[in-house]
Amino acid sequence: MTSPSRRDLANAIRFLTADVVQQASSGHPGTAMGMADIAEVLWNGFLKHNPANPKWSNRDRFVQSNGHGSMLIYSLLHLSGYDLTVQDLRDHRKLHSKTPGHPELGITDGVETTTGPLGQGFANAVGMAFAEKKLATEFNRDGFPIVDHFTYVFVGDGCLMEGVAQEAASLAGSLGLNKLIAVYDDNNISIDGEVGAWFADDTAARFRSLGWNVVADVDGHDSDAVASAFEAAHRSQDKPTMICCKTIIGFGSPNKQGKEEVHGSPLGIEEVALTRKSLGWDHPAFFVPAEILQGWNALAKGEAAESRWNELFANYSKSYPELAAEFSRRNAGELPKNFDAVVSAEVARILASDPAKQPLRKGSNRVATKLIENTPEVVGGSADVSVSTLAWTSASRSITKDDFAGNFVHYGVREFGMSAMMNGMAAHGGLLPYGSCYLVFSDYSRNAVRLASLMGLRAIFLYTHDSIGVGEDGPTHQPCEQMLALRAIPGMSLWRPGSELEALAGWEAAFKRKGPTVIVAARQDGAVFAHTPEHLDGIRRGGYVLRQSSCETPDVVLVGTGSELAQIIAAGDQLEQQGKSVRLVSIPNGNIFAAQDKAYQDEVLSFGTPAVFVEAASPLYWYQFLKGPGTVVGVDRFGESATGPELYRLLNITAERVVAEAMALLG
Amino acid sequence: MTSPSRRDLANAIRFLTADVVQQASSGHPGTAMGMADIAEVLWNGFLKHNPANPKWSNRDRFVQSNGHGSMLIYSLLHLSGYDLTVQDLRDHRKLHSKTPGHPELGITDGVETTTGPLGQGFANAVGMAFAEKKLATEFNRDGFPIVDHFTYVFVGDGCLMEGVAQEAASLAGSLGLNKLIAVYDDNNISIDGEVGAWFADDTAARFRSLGWNVVADVDGHDSDAVASAFEAAHRSQDKPTMICCKTIIGFGSPNKQGKEEVHGSPLGIEEVALTRKSLGWDHPAFFVPAEILQGWNALAKGEAAESRWNELFANYSKSYPELAAEFSRRNAGELPKNFDAVVSAEVARILASDPAKQPLRKGSNRVATKLIENTPEVVGGSADVSVSTLAWTSASRSITKDDFAGNFVHYGVREFGMSAMMNGMAAHGGLLPYGSCYLVFSDYSRNAVRLASLMGLRAIFLYTHDSIGVGEDGPTHQPCEQMLALRAIPGMSLWRPGSELEALAGWEAAFKRKGPTVIVAARQDGAVFAHTPEHLDGIRRGGYVLRQSSCETPDVVLVGTGSELAQIIAAGDQLEQQGKSVRLVSIPNGNIFAAQDKAYQDEVLSFGTPAVFVEAASPLYWYQFLKGPGTVVGVDRFGESATGPELYRLLNITAERVVAEAMALLG
Repeated sequence: MTSPSRRDLANAIRFLTADVVQQASSGHPGTAMGMADIAEVLWNGFLKHNPANPKWSNRDRFVQSNGHGSMLIYSLLHLSGYDLTVQDLRDHRKLHSKTPGHPELGITDGVETTTGPLGQGFANAVGMAFAEKKLATEFNRDGFPIVDHFTYVFVGDGCLMEGVAQEAASLAGSLGLNKLIAVYDDNNISIDGEVGAWFADDTAARFRSLGWNVVADVDGHDSDAVASAFEAAHRSQDKPTMICCKTIIGFGSPNKQGKEEVHGSPLGIEEVALTRKSLGWDHPAFFVPAEILQGWNALAKGEAAESRWNELFANYSKSYPELAAEFSRRNAGELPKNFDAVVSAEVARILASDPAKQPLRKGSNRVATKLIENTPEVVGGSADVSVSTLAWTSASRSITKDDFAGNFVHYGVREFGMSAMMNGMAAHGGLLPYGSCYLVFSDYSRNAVRLASLMGLRAIFLYTHDSIGVGEDGPTHQPCEQMLALRAIPGMSLWRPGSELEALAGWEAAFKRKGPTVIVAARQDGAVFAHTPEHLDGIRRGGYVLRQSSCETPDVVLVGTGSELAQIIAAGDQLEQQGKSVRLVSIPNGNIFAAQDKAYQDEVLSFGTPAVFVEAASPLYWYQFLKGPGTVVGVDRFGESATGPELYRLLNITAERVVAEAMALLG
Repeated sequence: MTSPSRRDLANAIRFLTADVVQQASSGHPGTAMGMADIAEVLWNGFLKHNPANPKWSNRDRFVQSNGHGSMLIYSLLHLSGYDLTVQDLRDHRKLHSKTPGHPELGITDGVETTTGPLGQGFANAVGMAFAEKKLATEFNRDGFPIVDHFTYVFVGDGCLMEGVAQEAASLAGSLGLNKLIAVYDDNNISIDGEVGAWFADDTAARFRSLGWNVVADVDGHDSDAVASAFEAAHRSQDKPTMICCKTIIGFGSPNKQGKEEVHGSPLGIEEVALTRKSLGWDHPAFFVPAEILQGWNALAKGEAAESRWNELFANYSKSYPELAAEFSRRNAGELPKNFDAVVSAEVARILASDPAKQPLRKGSNRVATKLIENTPEVVGGSADVSVSTLAWTSASRSITKDDFAGNFVHYGVREFGMSAMMNGMAAHGGLLPYGSCYLVFSDYSRNAVRLASLMGLRAIFLYTHDSIGVGEDGPTHQPCEQMLALRAIPGMSLWRPGSELEALAGWEAAFKRKGPTVIVAARQDGAVFAHTPEHLDGIRRGGYVLRQSSCETPDVVLVGTGSELAQIIAAGDQLEQQGKSVRLVSIPNGNIFAAQDKAYQDEVLSFGTPAVFVEAASPLYWYQFLKGPGTVVGVDRFGESATGPELYRLLNITAERVVAEAMALLG
């Protein structure tokens, strides 16, 4: 028996894909069939991984950014020995299967990140390569390269057309992430047809211009050429590598290869049969011969690789016990042991301080600094507004190409790239990323924030300049609907703190959460008021009674968030002077509050009591909490260019308005 | 008296800027001072415009994409003779002034588009250059180049870092938009400091790789070099041009030029004085000497240029009266005279047809096709999903680099670039753009959609694949919060039609609106039901009673949109069988409905009657309309990969659920 050829091995991917998609009657065969030869070379010749332990920290990362071609990665995982059976493949695109339409983190072992929204898998991979370099800098010692892996990412034309890929590619070049290796599936086809008419880029030249090492003009069906390209990529010392492979989409299908129709539809029963004949694959559907399975199986190799690393790490642990313990803690995603003590000390400091007027972003910065100082896995950053968002703290130190010892990334003006890279860092493990921009420009990065939530990644998005309070920069810079839109992302947790204590609770929760957190810290001043120790529990539940008149049942409930606590406090004072019994409620996190049981919500909001909600943003979020007479004072128009206080008056977000609304409700 | 030097002329910009920002105590002096020499050469040497008529159709378009440096364009408009006084400049960043923090379309004559969100002004300019080429192809005749102008755009580092610029640049290269001329203000500074550490691109090489003509290494303070660069750009026959100018940010400020601190803060009184000394500008604040004003004034030149064009157009009108009339109509933004008749015919056709099961996107396509066939200014397009969104109609014909006679743009996988280009086309005038992608990927382009609304631009965003109904592609492709987020954009008008008639009303309104429209057309089937002629008025008011039991006051009101009309209709049937009096309400456009007077809303929703709202999306939008007992049946979690019908059952968006909710409300 001769051992199977590389083409035979690759054909296993092709026919698993063609058969599965045919059976599912939907799916994307073209990419998997086109990239099969490349994938075979990478997975059998280069990829360092252990299918028996998909979480081995030093594995190479593999990302298929062109996620619609998910049968490629599913086939690879199945063939190389991951916990993914033929039946799992046959369940492709079926409810609760391990092989959903697009690869999803957390559903399939070996899938490193959720892909499908084009361009973002590539940016995730940049984040992973960043994480590797950062952790290597931090933990490796002479003779102990305990962090030493490549990140491979497959991209299609679609990924490269998306702006987010450009943002991440430019930063990857600027940061010299040489262990990042991208493979461009240059098949000349996207959904609309042959791409030349709308994508005439010279991709090789483009990536060279971004500071990449480019291996151009590789025949993606010539295994030797592909292998040489990976070898060249491994030699790159200071640049990420882009391997440009010419491929034929749907390779092997006599009538459909090279055409758009093979991208997103089954080949058809007859064409599958013709493809079998054309590629000489005379096995039944879903069947892979033993010698081919043998050629793919990576369990022994993977086990050996991880064993070597385990030995290395054991020796490292002897030489550097503290570093090793720290490395293990970080990879487990555990916070430092003293984390709660640091939080408690901050709580005590805040409660003991006299409340003073300050921009809310400053309070946020102060508490965040304490947590960051104490948590070395934190990597901050900003899309070119490090100082004005106060993402830059006294604990921050810049990371540059030649110095990865710092803890702060200057992402440049690249909100989307930043956010998708943060997702990659979080998915890699060992780091806790936060990144900042102005709230209104969260729009640029929304889909990455959404994917962070879908993946349950611990990433912190710090947004400042949160309302018409932005002032003179005008409506382009004044958010209105952004908080609503972010809160509405399933699984999201958005804090809009109105005090240093609320900000502390927000940052604390963000550090502890298995999922992303948005912290909205206003540029304008917060209200001046004192917290009682009892508030903390309520803050952590998302909403609480901040203050109420002596009487048990209030006449009216005033609810605010962030800087608008000032308006409800002032309105409360005025209403009390008029003899009304008033309850003031702060809801710094509507997502958490909405998840509390109804009894707690009722305890706080006194459902049925007239209520006025106040937030200088789209009012739509708050109607869900109105269970009786009430109104929402918000902003449902664009702002203007003037000072913040003028705009609060112009748009009528004032204590006087709140009083008037309350009095109207009270009849 | 010697005539002023070019530097003297440019210094007028510098000191207007420095003085205004100093007086305003906030603003961005650096860019205007750095680009003053370039702007002087362009505006005095090349720009074809008439300050007396900022709406002259054949003017060159000038876009300052780095909009934070707005004092540059404001100074240029003032100096060249637009209706913008020194007092207007002094009111910079003040409430209701003509000189807001960022340039805004509609507020200041001569501002062609709203800029500030970085990268988008550049993409707008690509759209404008596209519009010029498209209109020239359509209307120019031998000897009659009635459409013949350049589009100039200034960009900074920030614009070029943003992915949206990459998307638009790549398409501009692919389409060969040779009358687009970009000037890169390469000053090496962004807010975080010197950009090299995070923006190491070789920008000239990058743009060459995108198919641009590049004039590299121009000294932006050498007027002759700059003039030569523009001349070279004018000679480009098939490529857009990027002029890379090295400049010094804050040029002239002895202690601050070339540094980040001059980007976004006043120079300080002393430094302004030192700058005066350094540049030899011994005039008082806000004063520009007459000879310098004279050197800038473009009224006579502009008047002459427009006169020549008027003469050309008069002759054209004699030779091609129909074309000339059509050109005038299009530039006035008026629809074809028979537009209403076409709509009426479609209404009649639909009302006369037997209702049949069909995907909602098909009904949308059918009615849109009729309107598009009849409206030659329409330019459709898609971000690589032309067919699956059915944006491609039987009236569509592709536009390519060598053939601009068509009416459909293949934007490639570039949602954000597409949307920002559409804004540029709409702002240019003469075209009515629509563009499509899957609803979930509206996330990628949100900020452009927002700017369309802020600018009041007539652009139509067609989004399909609108819910968990997307099915097997899974949660990355299934929108949930997107409709809410889009509806919450101030001024937005979002249609989610549930029938062909509703789709027709949506397209009709979109064509007529002075502002953007989102049309969400589901991939899944709509309900099968017949409209009565009376429905049309209600549809146009955003919401209406679709059906009700004989009894006047219903027991329960069921409200749905789009494909979920099926659930309320079936639930209504079941409830009626149980003896309940049911009213069915369709709200195809919540924005329009919310803008109706309360009496009409009450007439439709019967406020106080138990109500169940149903939409397979984030429920948060609908609570605003709940004024009594009621509930919202929606989706507030991520979907999964399975068939659409399975997911509707899994997430419990079913008629049975609606019945159960209604019965619970009825006690």
